[in-house]
Amino acid sequence: TSKTVAVLPGDGIGPEVLDAALPVIDALGLPITLEHGDIGWEFWRTEGTPVPQRTWDLIGRSDAVLLGATTSKPGREALADLAPQLREQAPQYVSPIIQLRQRLDLFANLRPVESYLGGTPYRFCVVRENTEGLYAGLDWDQVPEEMWPLVADHPNARISGREATTASVRMLTRHGLDRILRYAFEHARAHGHPRVTLADKPNVLRRSSAYARERLEEIAADYPEIEYEILNVDAVALWMARRPERFGVIVAENMFGDILSDLGGGVMGGLGLAPSANIGEHGNYFEPVHGSAPALAGTGRANPLAAFLTVGLLLEHLGFGEAAGQVRDAVSHVTRRRDRVTYDLGGTATTTECAAAVLDACGAV
Amino acid sequence: TSKTVAVLPGDGIGPEVLDAALPVIDALGLPITLEHGDIGWEFWRTEGTPVPQRTWDLIGRSDAVLLGATTSKPGREALADLAPQLREQAPQYVSPIIQLRQRLDLFANLRPVESYLGGTPYRFCVVRENTEGLYAGLDWDQVPEEMWPLVADHPNARISGREATTASVRMLTRHGLDRILRYAFEHARAHGHPRVTLADKPNVLRRSSAYARERLEEIAADYPEIEYEILNVDAVALWMARRPERFGVIVAENMFGDILSDLGGGVMGGLGLAPSANIGEHGNYFEPVHGSAPALAGTGRANPLAAFLTVGLLLEHLGFGEAAGQVRDAVSHVTRRRDRVTYDLGGTATTTECAAAVLDACGAV
Ligand SMILES: CC(C)[C@H](C(=O)O)[C@@H](O)C(=O)O
Ligand SMILES: CC(C)[C@H](C(=O)O)[C@@H](O)C(=O)O
Repeated sequence: TSKTVAVLPGDGIGPEVLDAALPVIDALGLPITLEHGDIGWEFWRTEGTPVPQRTWDLIGRSDAVLLGATTSKPGREALADLAPQLREQAPQYVSPIIQLRQRLDLFANLRPVESYLGGTPYRFCVVRENTEGLYAGLDWDQVPEEMWPLVADHPNARISGREATTASVRMLTRHGLDRILRYAFEHARAHGHPRVTLADKPNVLRRSSAYARERLEEIAADYPEIEYEILNVDAVALWMARRPERFGVIVAENMFGDILSDLGGGVMGGLGLAPSANIGEHGNYFEPVHGSAPALAGTGRANPLAAFLTVGLLLEHLGFGEAAGQVRDAVSHVTRRRDRVTYDLGGTATTTECAAAVLDACGAV
Repeated sequence: TSKTVAVLPGDGIGPEVLDAALPVIDALGLPITLEHGDIGWEFWRTEGTPVPQRTWDLIGRSDAVLLGATTSKPGREALADLAPQLREQAPQYVSPIIQLRQRLDLFANLRPVESYLGGTPYRFCVVRENTEGLYAGLDWDQVPEEMWPLVADHPNARISGREATTASVRMLTRHGLDRILRYAFEHARAHGHPRVTLADKPNVLRRSSAYARERLEEIAADYPEIEYEILNVDAVALWMARRPERFGVIVAENMFGDILSDLGGGVMGGLGLAPSANIGEHGNYFEPVHGSAPALAGTGRANPLAAFLTVGLLLEHLGFGEAAGQVRDAVSHVTRRRDRVTYDLGGTATTTECAAAVLDACGAV
């Protein structure tokens, strides 16, 4: 049966990396209809929102969403280009991907990390919680009145006073923990990973981490064939850099997961190879982890491989597992030669040359 | 003038790595008196506190404190060894280093990261805030009543209810920010680093990060010759793994600094090379970043190099800059041969063999 994919190119290098990677879908002869839609900074400028209603409608009627890249926070140049009356409103711009995650309740952010560039082989996955933690929107430059009594005894707060004390809340809930933990175990089971590692901070955040442990133990009981462990997030960062082959599935709350998954990009040799999937009960979006990189846009040097791998994740999700494998193998093949990869991986190829090599390796040209 | 150093060996491999490294002080002929003191899990078991009053007294009359390693959270084996009546009280054990940081108000945690093992040379430093952030002790397995109204609107909280919603507060204060930022700029100035990087999360924690930016800008004005930038913590993790030579001084709040500095250990090739200094107005302690590693204790395989580098930091702090340089150079020299370093660095030497090589390289034997 044919599937519909909403394609949202977005800002900066988003459009060019999608343009480069999308032909693989046709080339593999998959029954997928692409519908392009609007997202990003441009639409905030012209329509007052980076995600117009027609885009929400398109998303609503699609089986999957493929995103290029968007502006998370307008940079100096974007601001300089604005009409003065708009400039004041810019702080109200909210990253489209944060909006998608929240409004569609996309609780699982899946970020595979794989040794495409050689060395000791590894393949693990960061499963990041996407809806709570320090991203719950509970962040104040002055501690709210209600909270002040809880905080005021701390020596630094006492010295600084309420007006010079900020607060951000890391909120973990049973609902949030249970579904992300279950997702992590299901993912481990489906991909034959023998172990799930919870990256948290039990030696310091004793109470909240103890609660996370409780939930972990209860859910793990449903997956007796899969081992589990809890490590301090700092130790996970260290071991990711030292022995990535040690890991299978790493599950983490939102901020820890954010840091660890970007680090995963670093371990792999750069975000140029990092795809992601954001999944919920009633929606999803797939996106390269890299940003919109405005300075790189239009230079022909953007690396399209993360976009290819992202299409791979999307194909897997839609049930085209074999095609997904073909895309991954093709990327793997292409990374073996410097003249086929872009500058960020030490290569000499342009975006189009690199993309052509992947299509070629797919047996598709 | 002669200085007094309190030596607190602590748990696990703490005593052996200090035994291995301490002779360098005598060997370099420095006017330092060592006084040994008690700290660690053993004293919690036998005296009800891991830091007995006599140890606080010793610390109070010393110019500097050298720590080996301590138990941060009792592991399974430590608990199994306990009398049953004590086992229930074990959750009340608070890591001695957290106690030292809090009670002595040691706000700056300095962690140098240096390319001892070859490759592109780099030398940077993570300056971690040590007294607030998510370490402020504001952590609950159930959101406190007072905070619930602030949280209850979040869909996950609504679904889970108060009794299944945890909260931990990242608290930043003007007092805490100003002193750590000033420390970072002073450190950059003293060590000739051209740039200070604040690792925070302005694209998500908008309000609290905006406040941190305000403080940064005000303090940076006193250091016109030093550049500064604010990067998202996830990007800093990525770049530390990819291009550590990019950094000079990285300053971060407590939890971000914890993760980044452990990652620094990973980048260096392991915690076996990672020293730290914890500094305040009225006290300090110096400690290898590695933990007590109970499983390694007594095997003769512990790496003493972090302890040597820690002694180096301590010597620098006490004004023996030249001797500090000698220790660093000696470590650098020793790491060039596999038969002089321990297994964790791919070597074959025992703790004592490695230590002897360092002493030798100091021209001290
Ligand atoms: C752009 C930003 C809001 C986002 C995040 O922090 O989640 C990004 O870093 C990511 O990892 O997807
Ligand atoms: C042991 C633990 C409490 C400590 C911390 O988290 O600060 C350690 O990881 C460190 O980095 O010194």
